[in-house]
Amino acid sequence: MYNITHSDDNDILAAGSQNYYPSLSVDNVIFGYHEKKLKVLLNKWQVLEKWMLPGGFIRKTETIEQAALRIVNYRTGLRNLYLQQFKTFSKPNRNIEENYNHESISKIFGLDVDPDHWMFKNVITVGFFALTEYSRVIPKGNIHSEIVKWWDIKNLPDLVFDHNEIVNDALNALKLFIHHHPIGYELLPEKFTLPEIHSLYETILDRKIDIRNFSKKMINLGLIIKLDERKNIGAHRSPFLYFFNKKRYDQIIEENEIIVI
Amino acid sequence: MYNITHSDDNDILAAGSQNYYPSLSVDNVIFGYHEKKLKVLLNKWQVLEKWMLPGGFIRKTETIEQAALRIVNYRTGLRNLYLQQFKTFSKPNRNIEENYNHESISKIFGLDVDPDHWMFKNVITVGFFALTEYSRVIPKGNIHSEIVKWWDIKNLPDLVFDHNEIVNDALNALKLFIHHHPIGYELLPEKFTLPEIHSLYETILDRKIDIRNFSKKMINLGLIIKLDERKNIGAHRSPFLYFFNKKRYDQIIEENEIIVI
Repeated sequence: MYNITHSDDNDILAAGSQNYYPSLSVDNVIFGYHEKKLKVLLNKWQVLEKWMLPGGFIRKTETIEQAALRIVNYRTGLRNLYLQQFKTFSKPNRNIEENYNHESISKIFGLDVDPDHWMFKNVITVGFFALTEYSRVIPKGNIHSEIVKWWDIKNLPDLVFDHNEIVNDALNALKLFIHHHPIGYELLPEKFTLPEIHSLYETILDRKIDIRNFSKKMINLGLIIKLDERKNIGAHRSPFLYFFNKKRYDQIIEENEIIVI
Repeated sequence: MYNITHSDDNDILAAGSQNYYPSLSVDNVIFGYHEKKLKVLLNKWQVLEKWMLPGGFIRKTETIEQAALRIVNYRTGLRNLYLQQFKTFSKPNRNIEENYNHESISKIFGLDVDPDHWMFKNVITVGFFALTEYSRVIPKGNIHSEIVKWWDIKNLPDLVFDHNEIVNDALNALKLFIHHHPIGYELLPEKFTLPEIHSLYETILDRKIDIRNFSKKMINLGLIIKLDERKNIGAHRSPFLYFFNKKRYDQIIEENEIIVI
């Protein structure tokens, strides 16, 4: 039995749909990039065998965007992520799962949850994704002994509900997203080399990209600017450093420009 | 007073959240293209001053995609649209509107609707858009004397709730969409000229596009193929006809290719 200290859980489990939208949730796919690897942040409730996306329910006084941020912070400790809505999932019975029922949930939260509570029936969920530098963030669980861990995108476990499908759709959304939103600003150091930014795009798009064409395009787009400074990485190699042109970066987002890679 | 013949309305207004998801709806932005003009299909309830998007509520036995199709058909008579989910809207109090209350809705549907019904409180809505050839479709209203009409995108009236914002966001989504999904297959005749397909893209993107570059890109992408046949449109002008390469078209969607315009 656990002490309830977070009033949200009480509200949802007891009051049901007074303060929260019934039958509706958000789920967050948090991608982490670091040195040519793409990972996803998952958490695990003690009561469920499987891992899941950090998700939760929505207050009637907030937008789904605010709910997504609040829930990510509560479940993982992460703050200030740029969360992007990408798709709403509604397959009937999408959230039926072994051991997910009023008994297990009552036990975790130390409350008598109604067996007919809407959270065990059809729930529609709004998917968000974010992209962050994963070595900078130390995820943490919360009072319900949840554990939180980065998982390699190429080696995900079998997730609860339809969460594998949600991750897959988020990854496809991210691959389209980077043609309309320059990425890297929060993912690379302030000064970076062409191989570093090239690896970032290759990792996310999961395909080989010609580095000379890629570099030429990034420079021609005005997205990155060459410094009169080199990175010393070995006796015979000292590639030039580049930095992001933040003004151009914002303009591309503003004007729906296409970034061809 | 009107006769109720459509069981859906009874279910939603009386039973509330037994068969339908409470506090959740879909709204459909149907774009119509014809001869260099882009229009939007709107409907109007007798009781409300303002026009609105054809929307409605979601059965617990269907996906939101199925709900969107069913509702479009019920409200406008249109069938077989390719509806694309683009964003979910959740601003608190987004669906507060003058004359939208239990009295007016009770009157329209000939039922006593609970003043506390969730439909008059915060409702989150999932936005869909579709693109169709508007001269081919004759919209019709339904039993509640709704009227349905195409409106010029450049000259929309003040809509109910946050529907102006939804149309605006749908238009932005469409402008990104056409870089990942070839359009025109259902919008142009089977054989068309370069100026015809060029006008379609100019109209949707709402900007001047160089026709020679555009044509070269469409041909190089393999999207359109030149016929050994000309269109006779005047004494001195008989431009070549083209047709869509459907196989290439499907491949572009399948492989998330970028269409640079």
